[in-house]
Amino acid sequence: MNINASRLQAHFEAMSLIGKIGETGTCRPAHSALEKQAFYLAASWMEEAGMTTKIDNFGNLIGTLEGTNPELPLLMMGSHLDSQPYGGRFDGVAGVLCAIEVVTTLTENNIKPTRTIEVISFADEEGWRFNKGLFGSKGILGMLEEGDLQRTDKDGISREKALIDFGCDITKFKEDEYKPGSIFCFLELHIEQGPVLDIANKPIGIVSGIAGPLWLTVKLKGMAGHAGSVPMAIRKDALVGAAEIIIALNEIATQIPCASTVGTVGTINVFPASRNIIPEEVSFTVDLRDIDLERRNRYEKQLLESIEAITQKHQLTYTISEDTNSEPRYCADWIKAIIRKQCEALNLDAPELMSGPFHDSLSMSFVCDYGMIFIRSKDGISHNPLEYSSYEDLALGTNVLLGTVQQILQK
Amino acid sequence: MNINASRLQAHFEAMSLIGKIGETGTCRPAHSALEKQAFYLAASWMEEAGMTTKIDNFGNLIGTLEGTNPELPLLMMGSHLDSQPYGGRFDGVAGVLCAIEVVTTLTENNIKPTRTIEVISFADEEGWRFNKGLFGSKGILGMLEEGDLQRTDKDGISREKALIDFGCDITKFKEDEYKPGSIFCFLELHIEQGPVLDIANKPIGIVSGIAGPLWLTVKLKGMAGHAGSVPMAIRKDALVGAAEIIIALNEIATQIPCASTVGTVGTINVFPASRNIIPEEVSFTVDLRDIDLERRNRYEKQLLESIEAITQKHQLTYTISEDTNSEPRYCADWIKAIIRKQCEALNLDAPELMSGPFHDSLSMSFVCDYGMIFIRSKDGISHNPLEYSSYEDLALGTNVLLGTVQQILQK
Repeated sequence: MNINASRLQAHFEAMSLIGKIGETGTCRPAHSALEKQAFYLAASWMEEAGMTTKIDNFGNLIGTLEGTNPELPLLMMGSHLDSQPYGGRFDGVAGVLCAIEVVTTLTENNIKPTRTIEVISFADEEGWRFNKGLFGSKGILGMLEEGDLQRTDKDGISREKALIDFGCDITKFKEDEYKPGSIFCFLELHIEQGPVLDIANKPIGIVSGIAGPLWLTVKLKGMAGHAGSVPMAIRKDALVGAAEIIIALNEIATQIPCASTVGTVGTINVFPASRNIIPEEVSFTVDLRDIDLERRNRYEKQLLESIEAITQKHQLTYTISEDTNSEPRYCADWIKAIIRKQCEALNLDAPELMSGPFHDSLSMSFVCDYGMIFIRSKDGISHNPLEYSSYEDLALGTNVLLGTVQQILQK
Repeated sequence: MNINASRLQAHFEAMSLIGKIGETGTCRPAHSALEKQAFYLAASWMEEAGMTTKIDNFGNLIGTLEGTNPELPLLMMGSHLDSQPYGGRFDGVAGVLCAIEVVTTLTENNIKPTRTIEVISFADEEGWRFNKGLFGSKGILGMLEEGDLQRTDKDGISREKALIDFGCDITKFKEDEYKPGSIFCFLELHIEQGPVLDIANKPIGIVSGIAGPLWLTVKLKGMAGHAGSVPMAIRKDALVGAAEIIIALNEIATQIPCASTVGTVGTINVFPASRNIIPEEVSFTVDLRDIDLERRNRYEKQLLESIEAITQKHQLTYTISEDTNSEPRYCADWIKAIIRKQCEALNLDAPELMSGPFHDSLSMSFVCDYGMIFIRSKDGISHNPLEYSSYEDLALGTNVLLGTVQQILQK
């Protein structure tokens, strides 16, 4: 039994038209009209596969293929259909479309699973719109935190308002939470978003775990003044301080060559942002990840020491808020073993590798066993319109997922 | 004969209500409804002083006190009523209100000058809205450059549209230009915007010249990618490059301790600006000034060499555009001598000092002799709501200006 590679490709191509930017890019913000369009399209394919569909009050799209014994904990698969603001066609999309293809193949072959299977497209995995991700997967697990609904996007729209506009009833979150024990396991197919498989020339990888990120927001405050008249010696320039911290983070993350540590400042904002005024306030985000949590904690401490020293030197004050702090979460050995067996059956030499990026699986890992299949990313590029995984590799990965699901259904 | 200090203070206080932010701040953008409100208020005072008023097609407010011999080249005074986005109550405002006070005092004392006197509030001196300043003063002198009308603000509004919305007829610029030889001299009273007078404990300074700025816009391009998965070693992070350039500029500007060089990066923008994407594009502005032009040119060369080396190291491409490049412009000795005499008559020991910031006088210096009077700025603070000059100092400076005008009218 095999999946239908040309149907799968057609689904990718159709989905790529929603929120298309440039030739190959995608911009499909969380809780947006474009994401809803994507949901309707995916729901139509879910229904063709025999699933019932709904959008829950967290803004997740859920397709359900009821098992012959619906009392059994269910097998869940999925990922997300929201994209980065300047993203590609595969990140997240692959995990939803390949899971739908697997269910379609099962029903086409008249396989009636005892366990219920659900395919889910989680709301706001990406997290850029409200500066915090994994909203939908945390939502169904009752893991939302105080203030999550009050976060605002760059236009001042709160998540609460965005959800209501999306059609969600935020007073009914409780009804859409999954009971403890109701999910048997979670499977996510995803593009690697890094260069490891491409460099090794392997189409498929088996994920060993997710190195969760530490996300900080740093705010520096100095003193504005005329750029033409305040002598250098008495300045308190918040941007010069921020620049030194950005370089310090870069040095910290590269102190062991070729280690898995990554450190990034992705956003920076200056106030008052006039070319002839010394910056008074600068805020920027820090993203620090490492498979080795002990090392990440050590580096965080180094960064905090640098911030303290640099702000003292420039007479700046500062605040640091911790937006996310995830520990590494490891995949279940028994699922990895099943995935490996499927790869071997397809003559695939699939390396095992950690994931630097987080995924919805990170949330799911707190309530059930999970496994992830990685698809090779050309040149390791992701979160960019140039993101590319071949349809051959995606079809191969989907067949690995199909075999894995069949094995798990026998449990 | 003396000016009326309490009327002057009342005018400052009334003007400070237009575009007021916080307790002591001002935000009055160029070509805005707030600037127009300020114009109407200032025009009412001009008319009380016996002047006729108009707003010309560059968006300048012009008050005219016709002389008994209107054929003579005119005496022009003024500054600007637009403010920084997060500015104070005195920058620019002082030069307009003190000039109006001088004319009011003359007419109250029944002095009918032979030369015509004009008081002008120049449009968009500040330059932050369209990233280029001195628009009105360049306009009346026929010094506008190609593309000046096509520059856009952060909301995408072009200067052309802003001017038309302001009520200007941009097809009639030619009619509002001043003929060569029609301006005898230009006087501008301004707050120092730096700490020199405050440290020396002197209320009034005599400006020797303006150290014009070099304004560059630098754009760096690297490669976006997922912050969690692209190894540090293969990144092309445009923000890390920008941070190194910001620090390089700071080091260049401080290599000679206590020199008059100042270097500032006041704005920076990142694309795509997502906390978990490596910055692909960063653009930022550079402001470099020095009284010593030869040194400024040497430092500019050092900066360009740094940009070349830093972008090579991080595999970035870059473009640099030169938005403004002004040479130092010196005040007329004969006007400085008159100002000094007035200071002496008031028992003021007025130091001579250069201006780091540019002013409308910079444009005027290309067509006529000019002189400037500086008023002490508390703690050297400007372009900030904390900007403060005392009404006593402002009254003193206005009396110096009054005496200077009386002397010049005898020429």
